Amino acid sequence: MTKTKEKVRIIPLGGAGEIGKNMMMIEYKDELLVIDCGLKFPEEDMFGIDLVIPDITYLVENKHRVKAIVLTHGHEDHIGALPYVLRQVNIPIYGTKLTLGLVEGKLCEHGLVDQADLKEVKIGERLTIGAFDIDFVRVNHSIPDVVALGIHTSLGVIVYASDFKFDQTPIGGKTTDFGKLTDFGDEGVLVLLSDSTNAERPGYTLSEKVVGQTFDDTFRMANGRIIVASFASNIHRTQQVIDAALKYGRKVTVVGRSMVNTVNVSTKLGFMHIPDGTLVELNDIDKIPPNELVIVTTGSQGEPMSALTRMAMANHKKLSIMPGDTVILSSSPIPGNEKLIAKTINHLFKQGAEVIYEDFLGVHVSGHASQEELKLMLNLTKPKFFVPIHGEYRHLVKHSQLALEVGIAPENIAIIENGDVLSLTNESMDIVDKIPVGMVLVDGLGVGDVGNAVLRDRKLLSQDGILIVVIVINAQTGEIVAGPDIVSRGFVYVKESEKLIEGAREEVRALLKKWTDNNVFEWGSIKSEIRDVLNAHLYAKMKRRPMILPIIMEV
Amino acid sequence: MTKTKEKVRIIPLGGAGEIGKNMMMIEYKDELLVIDCGLKFPEEDMFGIDLVIPDITYLVENKHRVKAIVLTHGHEDHIGALPYVLRQVNIPIYGTKLTLGLVEGKLCEHGLVDQADLKEVKIGERLTIGAFDIDFVRVNHSIPDVVALGIHTSLGVIVYASDFKFDQTPIGGKTTDFGKLTDFGDEGVLVLLSDSTNAERPGYTLSEKVVGQTFDDTFRMANGRIIVASFASNIHRTQQVIDAALKYGRKVTVVGRSMVNTVNVSTKLGFMHIPDGTLVELNDIDKIPPNELVIVTTGSQGEPMSALTRMAMANHKKLSIMPGDTVILSSSPIPGNEKLIAKTINHLFKQGAEVIYEDFLGVHVSGHASQEELKLMLNLTKPKFFVPIHGEYRHLVKHSQLALEVGIAPENIAIIENGDVLSLTNESMDIVDKIPVGMVLVDGLGVGDVGNAVLRDRKLLSQDGILIVVIVINAQTGEIVAGPDIVSRGFVYVKESEKLIEGAREEVRALLKKWTDNNVFEWGSIKSEIRDVLNAHLYAKMKRRPMILPIIMEV
Repeated sequence: MTKTKEKVRIIPLGGAGEIGKNMMMIEYKDELLVIDCGLKFPEEDMFGIDLVIPDITYLVENKHRVKAIVLTHGHEDHIGALPYVLRQVNIPIYGTKLTLGLVEGKLCEHGLVDQADLKEVKIGERLTIGAFDIDFVRVNHSIPDVVALGIHTSLGVIVYASDFKFDQTPIGGKTTDFGKLTDFGDEGVLVLLSDSTNAERPGYTLSEKVVGQTFDDTFRMANGRIIVASFASNIHRTQQVIDAALKYGRKVTVVGRSMVNTVNVSTKLGFMHIPDGTLVELNDIDKIPPNELVIVTTGSQGEPMSALTRMAMANHKKLSIMPGDTVILSSSPIPGNEKLIAKTINHLFKQGAEVIYEDFLGVHVSGHASQEELKLMLNLTKPKFFVPIHGEYRHLVKHSQLALEVGIAPENIAIIENGDVLSLTNESMDIVDKIPVGMVLVDGLGVGDVGNAVLRDRKLLSQDGILIVVIVINAQTGEIVAGPDIVSRGFVYVKESEKLIEGAREEVRALLKKWTDNNVFEWGSIKSEIRDVLNAHLYAKMKRRPMILPIIMEV
Repeated sequence: MTKTKEKVRIIPLGGAGEIGKNMMMIEYKDELLVIDCGLKFPEEDMFGIDLVIPDITYLVENKHRVKAIVLTHGHEDHIGALPYVLRQVNIPIYGTKLTLGLVEGKLCEHGLVDQADLKEVKIGERLTIGAFDIDFVRVNHSIPDVVALGIHTSLGVIVYASDFKFDQTPIGGKTTDFGKLTDFGDEGVLVLLSDSTNAERPGYTLSEKVVGQTFDDTFRMANGRIIVASFASNIHRTQQVIDAALKYGRKVTVVGRSMVNTVNVSTKLGFMHIPDGTLVELNDIDKIPPNELVIVTTGSQGEPMSALTRMAMANHKKLSIMPGDTVILSSSPIPGNEKLIAKTINHLFKQGAEVIYEDFLGVHVSGHASQEELKLMLNLTKPKFFVPIHGEYRHLVKHSQLALEVGIAPENIAIIENGDVLSLTNESMDIVDKIPVGMVLVDGLGVGDVGNAVLRDRKLLSQDGILIVVIVINAQTGEIVAGPDIVSRGFVYVKESEKLIEGAREEVRALLKKWTDNNVFEWGSIKSEIRDVLNAHLYAKMKRRPMILPIIMEV
């Protein structure tokens, strides 16, 4: 590393201090490189929201300086925001074959595929994109064709180790490229940015092969149908189901739109290998004896609309659970989904299935590096500075503690959050600025139009419903010519609460009388008094606080 | 066991096939005994609901036959429904000293303590209550003064092993009463009903003492304040905090209403021992050096209003986190609370605290028996019939598999759910009937008045809000004299969506014109058409489906 006055700036737009919607900007020689462009799923208090994407205001304002978006792999939390971002900043997108295959499908759905400039990179390749000289390094993860990035600068290498694990026996046989990582170490790594998702887990993450052994054991013992639910994107997992099916003479049917799509794409691109005659159509499965059939599907998170959940609830059109079925939930719960998953498992048991799920060792392994692997990444790359990424704050803290353990100096570790502008020279690393970032909420076709006020109303409505008071007045005289009428939704079962509602109407009548007796018609004040009076009345009677909405119509 | 034609009927009103609101009826010689009377907390789709209690219609209809409610221990899921049940069925309540102490507090809050007939039982006692001859047997759990029941009948003993564990080194030194349980086995156990909460966990549950060791280690190392959050009812846990504080020369302050109450009740009744001078008032803690202070509080589940969460969010009036604080979350997440807890932990780290939580072995142990203990209970009592209780369906299935393993015949195991009437003779066990049971939802002061229709509305409102269309018509002529006006809440940010709302108004105007042009005023049909037209319009424009509420006022 030679001394230079050049700077590198690192600005996370997403994924720093949170899980999901990963999006990082690297600024060098006044050019910007974007790494990944992901979405995340809404928190439970974001009522009605479909997706959350990063706020890219800064990116749009600086779009003349943005050279490319480079994708590390094809998971939704790394590519899912592309359709929204491309509409505002249409720049070249670099990714490996499978990653771009999955991106293409996504852009097709949004009618954007013709506009997009997709550039395929090969693992192991080194490319120059503007000022950025980038090595694409093979790493293992829970989807194939994943890369870490080594960005060569005059200050040293920036190693961007997005989601990864060190799988010593990966499916397909290709391990993380240790050589490239140590080469970076030898060249001199300015900064390592590394995945913190599993920073709380001691030891090593188990190899994907372990799950294959579990499948083998289960397939050998099962006398009925086998139903395997996992993430569609976990292509190696699905391959292992296919392999076990072939070994034990079972046919496979693939169920669920995303699973079908992913199997199609990955087979076409050579990432899955399914011999002819293995797959059967869902409509033909009745012809196959139960002990010769495997059903592969999604729904391992208990998603209410998934095939597995509908089978569990006995309302799938074509599939029902039969006693003797073995159901394998080959995944671990995403935080927040625990109760939905438990519900699905309970119902599968009630339908008579044997259910194999997370409490069984080896039914799922993580795609993320555990503590010993995180330390290994640090020791391979020997960075000067260290920045933990991809994780909630507590994961970043834990990952920092691991970096301290392997000898990184405390002042050379930075915990940054979305929007922090981290400026690095050869000798220093400082947060120098904060750009406005945040979440953009997607609800239906609306992108960013649902903000805090709307969410607050939805939350309020969800708690105790709404009570609407309608009054019709004579615009000339101010006289009340109809109402007050009261309509409620989500508050009480009206037929059983007539007295309560009538009491509320009385309160409003008394209040109106007080105003009209004085010949005063300040309708704004009257509305606000109606709210206060009814709030107090209903809380006293019911200890509930519905939204109170007075509407005054003039005739 | 002598042969007899007598029968025992077992009817769960709650807690069979679910976690929580435990309530069991035992019928013998035409008399009814109720065991426990618990509540549970609402599922996440039960918007606005505070509590869920069992439906006791059957109990009310048969109240002349009900002899007593016998309580096994003082947890909310075993006593929490008492205030609601006593209003309808006022019968004697039997429980141990601590259990009744906690019940008293609860009944006081509801103004019911004077009416209640509370009868204290001593652990180890044998009592006759009507036809029921009951042994109260000491068991360990995560609260003191817990009993299992041995109900002696001419058919054999009914062993009701509600929440329990076998702690070989319990706080206070008194283990589960192995002798009594084996005595039952020798006498002849007709049926064992046993806690399935941890039926999925292999091995043995760790002793409560283990947590004491963790506290000791942490207290020895900590240089700043120590903040311990746990369940208020876990009195042994709190005692262990006190003990560690004493050992390391720290004062203790107790924060949070339920924690303060429980410490008071249990100290008064002799279940906690706090030497004079140990406790300090919250207002006085500033006088105490950080390394001489322990704060005991609730909030280990990330409850938004708890002291711990408010400290984490830096909005507690009297307490704020200081760098150097060590926070111990001494509990495990109740399913559904994972994300709230994670949020609290993240914010504690951001405030500069070191946080010790569930990923650390020994920071919490369960109060429920694991698989080897469940088998031990089966082997001690040697029941003829076995009925797993207290657990979701999957836990009951697992517990049944354990019973099979220790040699119970499959036909002698019954998985029953709430409302099943299980009839036992000396020789047989059958589900003979199903009584109507269900959940009663408590929302504010309303008990059972919020049903599916109201919940459905709340859910709908939470997703995309509400859009209200108000029209004023002349009652005589049918002419429209004002409106259509459109008001929305929780749908879109109106100021930015004027065009959308205006479009909707146009749709309604066009529809009204069609009807009025024909001089037809079927307002019911018009309302329903407004709903259809706006639904289609808004879905096409926004892919959202707010609740549409047309209101027609006549003048």
